[in-house]
Parts: sequence; C-alpha cells; structure tokens
Amino acid sequence: MTSITFKNNRLRYLDQTQLPLKEAWKECSSARQGYAAIKELQVRGAPLIGVFAAYCAWIEIQKLSERTDKKFLKNSLAIIDTLKTCRPTAINLAWALERMRTILTSSTAAPHVLKRLLRTEAIAIHQEDIRLCRAMAEFGASLVKNNDTILTHCNAGALATAGMGTAVGVIYESARRYKNIKVYADETRPLLQGSRLTAWELQKSGVEVTVICDNMAAYLMQLGKINKIFVGADRITANGDVANKIGTYGVAVSAKHHKIPFYVVAPFSTFDLTLQKGSQIPIEERNHEEVRTILRKVATAPKKIQTWNPAFDVTPHELITAIITDRGIIKPPFNKNITAALQR
Amino acid sequence: MTSITFKNNRLRYLDQTQLPLKEAWKECSSARQGYAAIKELQVRGAPLIGVFAAYCAWIEIQKLSERTDKKFLKNSLAIIDTLKTCRPTAINLAWALERMRTILTSSTAAPHVLKRLLRTEAIAIHQEDIRLCRAMAEFGASLVKNNDTILTHCNAGALATAGMGTAVGVIYESARRYKNIKVYADETRPLLQGSRLTAWELQKSGVEVTVICDNMAAYLMQLGKINKIFVGADRITANGDVANKIGTYGVAVSAKHHKIPFYVVAPFSTFDLTLQKGSQIPIEERNHEEVRTILRKVATAPKKIQTWNPAFDVTPHELITAIITDRGIIKPPFNKNITAALQR
Repeated sequence: MTSITFKNNRLRYLDQTQLPLKEAWKECSSARQGYAAIKELQVRGAPLIGVFAAYCAWIEIQKLSERTDKKFLKNSLAIIDTLKTCRPTAINLAWALERMRTILTSSTAAPHVLKRLLRTEAIAIHQEDIRLCRAMAEFGASLVKNNDTILTHCNAGALATAGMGTAVGVIYESARRYKNIKVYADETRPLLQGSRLTAWELQKSGVEVTVICDNMAAYLMQLGKINKIFVGADRITANGDVANKIGTYGVAVSAKHHKIPFYVVAPFSTFDLTLQKGSQIPIEERNHEEVRTILRKVATAPKKIQTWNPAFDVTPHELITAIITDRGIIKPPFNKNITAALQR
Repeated sequence: MTSITFKNNRLRYLDQTQLPLKEAWKECSSARQGYAAIKELQVRGAPLIGVFAAYCAWIEIQKLSERTDKKFLKNSLAIIDTLKTCRPTAINLAWALERMRTILTSSTAAPHVLKRLLRTEAIAIHQEDIRLCRAMAEFGASLVKNNDTILTHCNAGALATAGMGTAVGVIYESARRYKNIKVYADETRPLLQGSRLTAWELQKSGVEVTVICDNMAAYLMQLGKINKIFVGADRITANGDVANKIGTYGVAVSAKHHKIPFYVVAPFSTFDLTLQKGSQIPIEERNHEEVRTILRKVATAPKKIQTWNPAFDVTPHELITAIITDRGIIKPPFNKNITAALQR
C-alpha cells in the first residue's frame, strides 16, 4: 500500500478525502496545487506531508529560470517558505522543507545543479521515511504480545507516511508476527481519519479491525478489552509532550485511569527540541463547518452555531509510557532520554 | 418549548430525528406506532419515553372491547408488556408502564372505568415530570455561579423530558439567575443528540452554546475552560452507579483527572434499587449502520466494516460529585444517602 508515487519526475497522490468510497489518484504539478492538497487534507499525516512538500518544492523550483543565480535562489526560497506555512502543527513539514532549503543555501552550485540536488534530496527524504517506518515497526512490535487488542486513534498508517506507517506500522508488524492481533480504531471526528482511513487500510491488509465512535473508547477500556494503545505524533517537544490529532489527549487520560500502556510512535523528524514543552506548540484551528457537518455533506448542528475546532491537542509526557522512534524506544525520564536518543 | 402534547385525547410528538433541520410534529394513534417512534429515537430521553409510553398504552387500551373483564385485563397487560421491551436501558420506561399496570391490577373496576383511570394516570405522569424537572433545575442551579462554563453530553433537555429537562434544565435555570453562563455541548456520536438537539434548544432559548466533537472535551478541560459538568441519566443503581448515553463515562474520567465537579441530574423515577451496581444494568447495543454512517445519510467507513455500538455506558459512583434529584442533592456515600433521599 502506498499513498504517493514519484516516477518519471511525476508526483502522484491518493486523494484521501475521497476514501473509503473511492480510490482517486491525482497528479500534482505545481507548488500551489500541492499547498491546496495539504491544506484540504487530500494529502495528510505528519511524515507524509513532509515528503510530499519536498517534492512540491522541487516541482516548482525546477520550472524557474536558470539565468540569474541570485534570482533563482530568492525565488526558490520563497517557494519553500510559502509551503512551510501550509499547516502549523506537524513539524515534519518544516523539517523536510528545511532540508531542501539547506541544499540551496549550503552550496554555490549553479541553478541547474541545484535543481538536480533538490530532486535527489526529495527522493532521499522519501526513501528515508520508508526505512524509518520499518525500524519503528520492529521496535514497536517488540512490545506487543500474541492475543493483544490494540486501540489506535486517527490514522498513523501507510496513508500517513511514505512507508508502512508509524502507530499502524507497529500493528502491521505485530499482525505479521502473531496469529491473533485485534484492533479498535477510533473514528476520529471531525474528519474521520480513523473510520475512513485506518479502517480501510487495515481491512485491505487483512487485519481484524473494529470501528468505534471516539466517545466509546473509555468504556471499552473499562470493560478490559484494550491491552495497549499506539498513536502517532505531529510534534514532540524536548520534555516529551506530544501534539497529535485532537482526541489523543482524552485517550491518554483514559489509558492512565485504566493503567493501560500508552505508546507514541514517531520518527526523529517529529521531535522539535527548540520547544521545551507542549504548550508552546502552535495548534491549528480549522473551519467551523467541519464540526457543523459531516465532511460538508450533511448538517449535524443548527446553522451558524458556534463551534470550537482544534485539529490537535497536547498530551503531557506524564501520560506517555514510551515513545517508539526509528532509533529505539525512549522511556521516561523523557527530558534526559530524548536528547540522548537523538544523538545516537 | 415542548416535545409532546396531549390534547383532546390526541397524542402528538416532535420527531427528534429530523431536528435541527425540520420541526416535524406527528400524531401517534397506536401502541405499535409509539413503539416504533421510541425504537427509532423519534421520541427519546429517559423521562420522555416514560411519559410517552404511558399515553401509548392508554391509546391502545381504550380501543379494546369492554365486553369481558378478563379478556380486557389480559389484552391490556399484553399491550403494556410489549411497550416495556422497546428499549432496555432507561428504567423510566418500565417505571411509567408499571404505574399503568398497577392501575389495572389493583382494582376490580369495570373496563370503561379502568380506561378513564389509565388516562388520568398517564396525564398525572406527564404533569409530574414537568414538576420534577422544575425541582431539579432549582436544586442544580444552587451549585452554579455566575461566569461558570458548563459542559454537557447528549441531550438531557426539554426534548428529553416533558418539562424543562434534567441537566439542561439546570442550565436554563442558571442562565435565568446569572448574567454570564456559557455552555459547551458534546456532539454525541453516533446519533448526535448534542449537536442536533441540545445545541438547537439552547440556541432557541438564547443560551450561549458552543458545539464540540466528543473527543475535544478532555482538551477543553486541560485548557481550564470548564468549571462544571452536568449530565442526565438513564438508570441509577443502589450504589450510585449511572448508566447514561455512551461517552458519559469518558467525560467523567476526564473530569476526575482535571478535578472538575461532575454532576448527574435525574428524577427519582430513574433510580433502580433492585440493582446493586452498574454492571448489572442491561446496555442496549444498536445497529452497525449508526457507526458506519452519519444518520444513515453519508458513509463514514468501509462497507461491512465491523463496529461496536453500545448506546450507553456506566459511570461508577466514585467519579460522581453529586446526584441532583427532585428531592434534593445526594452526595457520597451514595449507598447510604440514596436510600435515605428516596424515602423523603
């Protein structure tokens, strides 16, 4: 399963807003188009938007005139900076574009050379993400036992990365190793990434999955039906606080109450050590209509009713059992162990 | 605001499945029709279905032949027993029908007299519910202060009762007493009673209300935006455990974590002292399609995906700050204080 492809210099992506009803592949041929695709969540998932944005940057930059080095550099950086503003919370977007930026600013090569280097860098980011997912899946699966029932929130799967996923990658690897792994997927209002995407990819991969509404997760835990929880992350600060899809925090609070291990799965590119704690992370607030309707198709509330629609929340490190990264499993105290792990 | 009327022997009700898009009033002229209306949640809310079912019983019984006392009694009891099976969790349904049953079994009056007595009893249950709501609102509002922001789940309002509501009744009375009361309403998947009904009735009544998805409530609490939580109840056992709309338990767990008072509002008819604890309450599981779709209008998950759809959950008494009844506010230890309060 894959959610973007880059072949013969053409970038194609699966429009995730149309899943699970339709598998619609689209081509992205400009940064503006890529910006809109990310903004509208046609392409989503913290690691995936990083990879995708890197390609978008190259696609637009390779169209630029090569006549003046200075003008080429200025226009290239402007393209990158615009893409960076697309969504504020997931740090992987800024991280991938920063890598593209460094290619431009750390050499004095001619524009035609820089174009080639940027293409190579985007492909490297893409390939790296596939490897990172593989590594996280291996580390994570070592925490899982046969007959475990796992709860996950939102979609941190093959659709959220260029590889096999972060939290759902752990589930795939666990299902490969053990006979009897069951999964509950929170539907994840307002945009239903759990019921539309996680359920779709797990069902397609033959993993037993049951969809629940978000407000059923706590009761499921009370009934003793969940052994472990795995979720992804959009940004992790130096102290181990985690921004992830709205609803993650409520799941973590319930997990703590029921003494169920709560694991976060994320590659090193999700860590933002420039921030000390979660309250410093910018939280994207999205359109009222996402809450007032279901996918803008059916009204679910009175017109013009006031809503609150944060796309993410912050789970403080005290509620997290461990963070599974491509470089190993980080346990508390996170403040100390995150720095050590990232230096490996 | 009212959700059912009984005038000139005609029972009419607001079809709540069509709100907030349409205010459709319907007439109920048979027990079978009433049964379907309750089953499909056109008429819902624990107190309201008790009142409505009592009228439905009378409507069907008054059609019965008065020729043989014995046959009349047998057929009348059969009508009542069938209505009782309609929904299993809310005890008010059984409680109201038990009152109708007692009219039939505790006298030897002739059928035409019993018919009159049953009509009087249904009206009494109806009028009593209005009074009980008023009393709960007064007791509950005494716990609220000006500038409080209240969170509520599902709909425990004028639409859920024959009166001004239970939990939302407290909100109405608080908004009447104080200048600045704000409300957050959980949308309450799968059937969206919060965004469709609570938001609609509060907006109509001029109370400031903001709709959130269920999975946003914990984050709202973390940000310090909620002072108090009021919810209704479908059944309360002798130890103070509360069955209420699915999602209530998760809200209670988060409230405990954030040290926010969590209040349950319910009339004495919601208490079931034949049960010692919440795990003995039968929990209704409803159709998969409610989770796989939004109101059966838009698919939100892959076809045939497995779901879990309990309509209620159980909040253990340890998580409840107090239970507000028509007879006063019951505080822990509930085991002792519930019995004392109900004997008042």
